[in-house]
Amino acid sequence: MEKTALGPTTYLCPMPAVLIGAMVDDRPNYMVAAYCGLVQHDPPMIALSLAKTHYTNAGIRKSGAFSVNVATPELAERLDHCGIVSGRTDDKSGCFTAFYGSLGNAPMAAECPLNLECRLIQIVDFLGTNELFIAEIVGTYVNSDLVTDGHIDVARLDPLIFTVPDSMYRRIGDIVGRAWHIGRCTGPPTG
Amino acid sequence: MEKTALGPTTYLCPMPAVLIGAMVDDRPNYMVAAYCGLVQHDPPMIALSLAKTHYTNAGIRKSGAFSVNVATPELAERLDHCGIVSGRTDDKSGCFTAFYGSLGNAPMAAECPLNLECRLIQIVDFLGTNELFIAEIVGTYVNSDLVTDGHIDVARLDPLIFTVPDSMYRRIGDIVGRAWHIGRCTGPPTG
Repeated sequence: MEKTALGPTTYLCPMPAVLIGAMVDDRPNYMVAAYCGLVQHDPPMIALSLAKTHYTNAGIRKSGAFSVNVATPELAERLDHCGIVSGRTDDKSGCFTAFYGSLGNAPMAAECPLNLECRLIQIVDFLGTNELFIAEIVGTYVNSDLVTDGHIDVARLDPLIFTVPDSMYRRIGDIVGRAWHIGRCTGPPTG
Repeated sequence: MEKTALGPTTYLCPMPAVLIGAMVDDRPNYMVAAYCGLVQHDPPMIALSLAKTHYTNAGIRKSGAFSVNVATPELAERLDHCGIVSGRTDDKSGCFTAFYGSLGNAPMAAECPLNLECRLIQIVDFLGTNELFIAEIVGTYVNSDLVTDGHIDVARLDPLIFTVPDSMYRRIGDIVGRAWHIGRCTGPPTG
């Protein structure tokens, strides 16, 4: 297959499209992030990269806490709105209904069906435009109607995703197979 | 909506399901990663979190380079195979066809339609089971038949995704809307 070289890009895909909640200037603030991902399984840890210019960063620094909220297609417009306007100029505390877990200062968005409560562990300055907030996920909250025997129904959760190359929000699609399973009987190509 | 508390989990979703390529012990090695995400737009930077026990880590440290390869549903079994067997016991250099970009030592998998060539910048030890490789994306290679006027057709790219709560590989689904656009006319709820 012929390849086309496109130079340096951010074309990793897909990325999550999540709503970040944090206390900033004594009120809940919400922003959108795609640069957010897991970094450890046990204890569960997550990394969130934010441009140093964002309004949210000082709030996370001060409170030592934030939330990562998985949105759905129905919430896409409200989520996108929170990604367009800044908390510096607009009070976004009314965009979602805040609820709190054990930390008490990581506002989670009740309208989002899946919420991760995060305690800041470390801030990494990699000397670029962004800084990386590494946090422990101390609590998970999910809409009760999506849970059966402790398991989340991911298709009904319907998490929003983001594809960088075309700047689109998308749904997840069909199941391809089970991880750490479908490759068990596959050897490397012998030809 | 009533919420169910599930305690600490890694239920962020979705995550990418990418193939990592690196030179280890003088041959290309491939592994699967979901803990991989963008951390900066300009210059483009990516973070890859690997358990410290992985065979790949020493190779990335020594070469200062790795690749992130976006796979497709058709490659899911081969990708999963590379996530199940370790390069310590199995030579995985024949699982994919390596090609190289400007760095010369970041083996990219030709069978994957989208390849990111990455130069290691920093390793962050956050004192857990994993360590974080922060790298600059110095090159992007994409199958030429997926590119029109410099733009990638994401639907035809058909990138594989991973949903943590049910350990499934999935396809991406339908477009919901354009980011930084669909929320422009949406104010916060006034009720």
